[in-house]
Amino acid sequence: MSDVTSPPPQPAAMRLPQAGGAPPRATARPTVLIVGAGFGGLRAARALRKAPVDVVMLDRHNYHLFQPLLYQVATAGLEPEQIAKPVRAILRGQRNFEFRMVEVTGVDFAARQVATDHGPVSYDFLILAAGGETNYFGLDGIVRHGFGLKSVVEAVAIRNQVLSCFERAMLEPDPERRRALLTFVVVGGGPTGVEMSGALSELIRLVLVKDYPRLNIKDVRVLLLEATDRLLATLPERLREAAAETLWRKHVEVRFGAAVQDYDGGRVVLKGGEVIPAHTLIWAAGAKAVSLTATLGLATARQGRVTVTPTLNVPDHSEVYVIGDAAYLEKDGQPLPMMAPVAIQMAETATRNIVRQLRGEPPLGFRYKDPGSLATIGRNAAVAYLGGVAFKGFLAWVVWLIVHIIQLIGFRNKLFVLMNWAWDYFFYERAARLITKE
Amino acid sequence: MSDVTSPPPQPAAMRLPQAGGAPPRATARPTVLIVGAGFGGLRAARALRKAPVDVVMLDRHNYHLFQPLLYQVATAGLEPEQIAKPVRAILRGQRNFEFRMVEVTGVDFAARQVATDHGPVSYDFLILAAGGETNYFGLDGIVRHGFGLKSVVEAVAIRNQVLSCFERAMLEPDPERRRALLTFVVVGGGPTGVEMSGALSELIRLVLVKDYPRLNIKDVRVLLLEATDRLLATLPERLREAAAETLWRKHVEVRFGAAVQDYDGGRVVLKGGEVIPAHTLIWAAGAKAVSLTATLGLATARQGRVTVTPTLNVPDHSEVYVIGDAAYLEKDGQPLPMMAPVAIQMAETATRNIVRQLRGEPPLGFRYKDPGSLATIGRNAAVAYLGGVAFKGFLAWVVWLIVHIIQLIGFRNKLFVLMNWAWDYFFYERAARLITKE
Repeated sequence: MSDVTSPPPQPAAMRLPQAGGAPPRATARPTVLIVGAGFGGLRAARALRKAPVDVVMLDRHNYHLFQPLLYQVATAGLEPEQIAKPVRAILRGQRNFEFRMVEVTGVDFAARQVATDHGPVSYDFLILAAGGETNYFGLDGIVRHGFGLKSVVEAVAIRNQVLSCFERAMLEPDPERRRALLTFVVVGGGPTGVEMSGALSELIRLVLVKDYPRLNIKDVRVLLLEATDRLLATLPERLREAAAETLWRKHVEVRFGAAVQDYDGGRVVLKGGEVIPAHTLIWAAGAKAVSLTATLGLATARQGRVTVTPTLNVPDHSEVYVIGDAAYLEKDGQPLPMMAPVAIQMAETATRNIVRQLRGEPPLGFRYKDPGSLATIGRNAAVAYLGGVAFKGFLAWVVWLIVHIIQLIGFRNKLFVLMNWAWDYFFYERAARLITKE
Repeated sequence: MSDVTSPPPQPAAMRLPQAGGAPPRATARPTVLIVGAGFGGLRAARALRKAPVDVVMLDRHNYHLFQPLLYQVATAGLEPEQIAKPVRAILRGQRNFEFRMVEVTGVDFAARQVATDHGPVSYDFLILAAGGETNYFGLDGIVRHGFGLKSVVEAVAIRNQVLSCFERAMLEPDPERRRALLTFVVVGGGPTGVEMSGALSELIRLVLVKDYPRLNIKDVRVLLLEATDRLLATLPERLREAAAETLWRKHVEVRFGAAVQDYDGGRVVLKGGEVIPAHTLIWAAGAKAVSLTATLGLATARQGRVTVTPTLNVPDHSEVYVIGDAAYLEKDGQPLPMMAPVAIQMAETATRNIVRQLRGEPPLGFRYKDPGSLATIGRNAAVAYLGGVAFKGFLAWVVWLIVHIIQLIGFRNKLFVLMNWAWDYFFYERAARLITKE
């Protein structure tokens, strides 16, 4: 259990200069500092809107990103602006909220200060919701030549790469080089890899074939490489098999027991010695906590995640909470997954505990309620496991659509994404297939 | 007059390898090669859809960009995908059309070949519609530290810069440095400078003030610097005065007789010695033909534009046409402006002349019909001079909206832009205010 007997902390002096021309606020309220504007950080900020605290959020981006739809940006279906929204716009009406676009570089737990690239920021309570990043498992070739899928910039880079490969293939007289340009390898059979490979195959077979009348579709390959013998490992077997079968029918070469050993930008080398010539490798095979967590001097578990107490605290620091992808906690002997529902529920527990601490009440332990899993496999196809019920096909796809539209932040984003989806569904189109690099 | 007695050229051997797996087309039809997918190139390709020719278009981008709305991307109002459309999608149904994404590096007029970064391409007829670029008049500091506004990448760079300056200003304790971060200098009183400065001032005063409740609006300056004593020089005086007055009322500091001499990223130096501390300078003060035109060994006139005959040919080459921004032709002693209507009308003349040449008929001279000018100055305000009639205010603004929506290519783009405009108009919003650089 955490150190619940320590007195509630005193309000911190805000060390960061008061900018913006407004006079310093005469405040005696404790400051809750939230690091990260992801699902966890955002929920925490909102949950504290009526609490007697000042909320300060730090993020190196000025927007919240709806990561579950990032693969649709990478496959030219959605525009980045439609799945991202400025943090300041989201929390505009919240009086006790302040946002600062800075990069966090460390934490001084003794001084209760977070270090940033724009100087230190003091806190009374800290919620570390800094999220996760791609785990390349030390594979240098993939870091250099592969594409991750965690940020807007990476998603647009994939879009540019895929479309550029088609343009270059149209100019390539050598058939072997042309086939390598048109071979797209997605690594990792989790939700991201499954959704990415399915959407990529549909982009090519439903849309790009019309753009490239001289393209020989037999030159095109989309591969999904999975090191184990199962996709979407958390789902029941029936759904796993359905997902693999659906991808296969959409012309994704699903390969099990295929562990990538090296990649040089032109050739993917598998552990068994197999070599796949491919100009594009998208790495969706691993995630870990952001590298910041390794620099904090805290105990970390698998994937660099910070080990937290059942009340989501750092040991010996009842004023520091770690939530979401950056936190390590087990349920029934299994680590909680690095997914939005965990981050959101942890944000609710952490903020409730802060309010309890302010009232002198003991914090409560975190209990995760699994809402289930959903993955779409392109047009009319998805698998869903909700409330212990497994279903698939068109119904699961409709559920997937509704769940994602509801969770998107902002009515405008909902409207534009819905219109985009409807248009693409009926006209077999993708509006965003621009190559926008210089 | 051009050399109309020479026999129609013979079909060129396509030197570029036949890619894409399709067999080489057994064709005896002459090839019309169009360089550039702007307004002129696109109109030329469409005009030739029923002509007995093969049309090949080259561009270094895979999309056509609707440049007149680029300033709205720079001011977070529109998304790049909404004003750009892939060339392949636009001309998908045209059977005699082929697109290649390559960069043109030169022309061998004797061999009738265009040099590209992917090898040479032969032609029977060439339409050079390569467009224009920013003219910095040799001011190195502005090339290095200023922002142009001619491409999607530049527009997004301006958006990132403006929003980043606000984020940095919120963290800046020094009031002088903060004011320099919040000073935005637009140079050039043509349509781009007028529309850009008006939209920027509205973005700040209608939208960003809500995002930054601690911002002191008195720290913000938007300046429009014009070296002469008039904005929108081609319009009648009454409209020019109205434009300046409207900008002023929207809190744009319009400065006449202000010629920029140097810029180091922090200080704008004017010719008279005045120094304006500003972290952002947007250069809309000059255009010239793309630098390619200087390498062709052709006679060029002002702004590096290629001098063309009245039939739009290069002297001594009746099979080579130059149109749009890259071409220099006078009307009533004045050079034709570098604007879309000129390019479009020239494309119609050039393609009509090619068809006439194939029939053995003499080419016709080009006659420009000026459709008039329009410029918007933000919400509810514009100036218009159409068919000799000058009008301004709300009516001109509605005309501006209608004209631009009609000219946008593709119903989807029209729909999404219209919805964006309606939303922003009623809710005082801008959806795209994301900082998307890494």
